[in-house]
Amino acid sequence: MAIPTSDPIALVGFDADDTLWRSQDYFDAAQLAFEQIVGGYVDLRDARVAERLYEVEKGNLALFGYGVKGMTLSMVEAAVAITDARISATDLHRIVGLGKELLRHPVELLPGMREAVAAIAADYPIVLITKGDLFHQEAKVEQCGLAHLFRRIEIVSEKDPATYARVLEEFQLPASRFVMIGNSLRSDIAPVLALGGWGIHMPYHLTWAHEAEAEVASDAPRLLRVDAAQALPGALREIAGRAAAWLTQP
Amino acid sequence: MAIPTSDPIALVGFDADDTLWRSQDYFDAAQLAFEQIVGGYVDLRDARVAERLYEVEKGNLALFGYGVKGMTLSMVEAAVAITDARISATDLHRIVGLGKELLRHPVELLPGMREAVAAIAADYPIVLITKGDLFHQEAKVEQCGLAHLFRRIEIVSEKDPATYARVLEEFQLPASRFVMIGNSLRSDIAPVLALGGWGIHMPYHLTWAHEAEAEVASDAPRLLRVDAAQALPGALREIAGRAAAWLTQP
Repeated sequence: MAIPTSDPIALVGFDADDTLWRSQDYFDAAQLAFEQIVGGYVDLRDARVAERLYEVEKGNLALFGYGVKGMTLSMVEAAVAITDARISATDLHRIVGLGKELLRHPVELLPGMREAVAAIAADYPIVLITKGDLFHQEAKVEQCGLAHLFRRIEIVSEKDPATYARVLEEFQLPASRFVMIGNSLRSDIAPVLALGGWGIHMPYHLTWAHEAEAEVASDAPRLLRVDAAQALPGALREIAGRAAAWLTQP
Repeated sequence: MAIPTSDPIALVGFDADDTLWRSQDYFDAAQLAFEQIVGGYVDLRDARVAERLYEVEKGNLALFGYGVKGMTLSMVEAAVAITDARISATDLHRIVGLGKELLRHPVELLPGMREAVAAIAADYPIVLITKGDLFHQEAKVEQCGLAHLFRRIEIVSEKDPATYARVLEEFQLPASRFVMIGNSLRSDIAPVLALGGWGIHMPYHLTWAHEAEAEVASDAPRLLRVDAAQALPGALREIAGRAAAWLTQP
């Protein structure tokens, strides 16, 4: 498709987990099952199970990166620590099984997202930018049924300004012509705004503690917030209008 | 650099693990430590420990993909199965620790490889094509000190003909102008030969059972074999000469 040269927006990026499809629900369910298993050994009210699991996960991030397999290894480590190594091999095996279930969960697009992605892809080149296990993300992209609409699928280990800058360099675009759509202020919005790009924040009802750790001023001038996929094409038109107005300001 | 249009070879790919740097040694050491831990519960001679671990790993490949984290989860599963769940939480935690050590092992280039890569990069654009955990491979690429020589770093989930075809499409090259250098017949050589490309097989003294599962005729006309990095530039010249001769045949 040819982007009208009058349109200052030339590329739209989508996050995947909890933007295109449901993800955190499955992680939360796995964590609940983890707590039930560990609860056979300790008093859940006293043992700060969720906090200690998050501490182990966060401590392992620099070694494991994001994704289900690293999270599962962290669950095994946390279970041993929380139970003072009293947990049985059978229960540790069940925890590994929780991770395997997570890797197998079906890909369920969020309401209205199929139509929103198709509508936006009719007007702009779109890219998918997602982080996590390469193998698992590829499997979900394949299952989601939207892969053919994306110019490029970028599975990255970290979503920071350097990563977005590399993607923009590959498309030979300044950040001011790029809009990123996602649920995470930390991973999808803040780094793109920092580069001078645009963001559409579509919060999901669940957020992993790690992704909530970001500060973005709610009145940031290049940020819009929408509550549902149906509002995405309109938000994009609003951004294109603002960007055009800025360009033509004397 | 400008490739002389008279040179039929236009791109050279390198594998990473056990081609650029030592890898299988660390996996084998981890497996030995695994056997010692499990050996506290079963008679290693009777329990077919190595075979059963490989069976678990192979059974999980379609869910985990390649890489240390999946291997570590498979080791935990195999240890529970092999010991009939008698293994202690402390020992299962030690097995997770083996995986974490693997992720931390230093990147040690194989003898002569730094010079061979530099020499080839002076004559041809080179790409790194490696499979496994995105996060771990990125860390190793960064540590190896050669990353700046590569036009592109491709971390992929599977090295099959479709993957190599995608890379060649990005460079807009036919396979006949591509040479892949690697230690694995299954992952580095067979798929490239199948596409009509060239291979330089540089066997490593250790090979994971999975990577040994490939059949390539040793007299395949577009395949050379070398025993050391020092021989790589010469092998490449030999291939360029053969390719040029084929092109000019009436």
